[in-house]
Amino acid sequence: MKKKDYIEVGNPHRLLTPGPVLLITAGDGSEDNIFSVAWSTPLRKEPPMAAILSGKGHYTYRLIRKTGEFGINIPDLSMAEAVIYCGRNSGRDVDDKFAGAGLSRIPASRISAPLVAEAAARIECRISQVVDMGYSSLLIASLLRTEVRKDYYSEDRWDFNDGLKLIHHLGGSRFAVSGSDLEVD
Amino acid sequence: MKKKDYIEVGNPHRLLTPGPVLLITAGDGSEDNIFSVAWSTPLRKEPPMAAILSGKGHYTYRLIRKTGEFGINIPDLSMAEAVIYCGRNSGRDVDDKFAGAGLSRIPASRISAPLVAEAAARIECRISQVVDMGYSSLLIASLLRTEVRKDYYSEDRWDFNDGLKLIHHLGGSRFAVSGSDLEVD
Repeated sequence: MKKKDYIEVGNPHRLLTPGPVLLITAGDGSEDNIFSVAWSTPLRKEPPMAAILSGKGHYTYRLIRKTGEFGINIPDLSMAEAVIYCGRNSGRDVDDKFAGAGLSRIPASRISAPLVAEAAARIECRISQVVDMGYSSLLIASLLRTEVRKDYYSEDRWDFNDGLKLIHHLGGSRFAVSGSDLEVD
Repeated sequence: MKKKDYIEVGNPHRLLTPGPVLLITAGDGSEDNIFSVAWSTPLRKEPPMAAILSGKGHYTYRLIRKTGEFGINIPDLSMAEAVIYCGRNSGRDVDDKFAGAGLSRIPASRISAPLVAEAAARIECRISQVVDMGYSSLLIASLLRTEVRKDYYSEDRWDFNDGLKLIHHLGGSRFAVSGSDLEVD
């Protein structure tokens, strides 16, 4: 695959608002992991904040709570199989989930977690508040740095004119696919 | 429009997970209102819970906090103009936002807010916790009753085989449109 260009952007809520499934990365410099998250929402534009839901039993949860940091990686349609792989397999049972999913690590700028080289967009996050939801936690985080594929972004939002398709989880191994946009007058 | 059949379902998180834009209704029996919300997430399967973001300055916010209840109405593509109308116009300035948006009220079973007759799905919600996010609030709610259009639902999830298209907010008056689904082996 030809190396893609990315641009840093200041409005990460615009990338999360349409509700794509996410790949969450965590790491402390000596170990790392990746898992799939279907439940998330932007929370605030300025300063930029968002929240994800994570099961407390996830292998990665301990790493996230230890570092207080995680990476949000937004996949496009080409990564749908990787998303299912990362949702089905635990870091407890797999030596290297990145390799198993066919994904590559790249270093982040502001957090110790790696990011996903193939992702359509990447957001570096630091947790500011945790809301207990029983068997899972709502992790509320500040969004420290955001970059998005240049060919997938224009006029401060996702741009579907150059082949972008986003995937939205429906349940099990099914996704809704969005590949067009509509402007209402 | 031919009257559509609805079925009551027990897994409202499945309807919210793909991240569609929402129409939120509120009412106390003597007054009501409706507004658009782009930021939401499921939070828990059992008991079913979800959260929406609402600006504290919204005309409807006072009604929601007074009653502790709101309705989630999930629009399909045919309601995109109504969603933009409800986002652009405040209940302070419009006598009847339902009428202005071309939408019809129907009574809910468990809450005092009306629901939207035309919506693809409707969820009756009671607030259990409010998280302060500055100029807005994260309203965490129990999902008391859920119904969805029968032709839009099968095997416990959205079904796109009968013409369903969901809309996901991109910013301004633009939406991503999902109208197909994908199963990963």
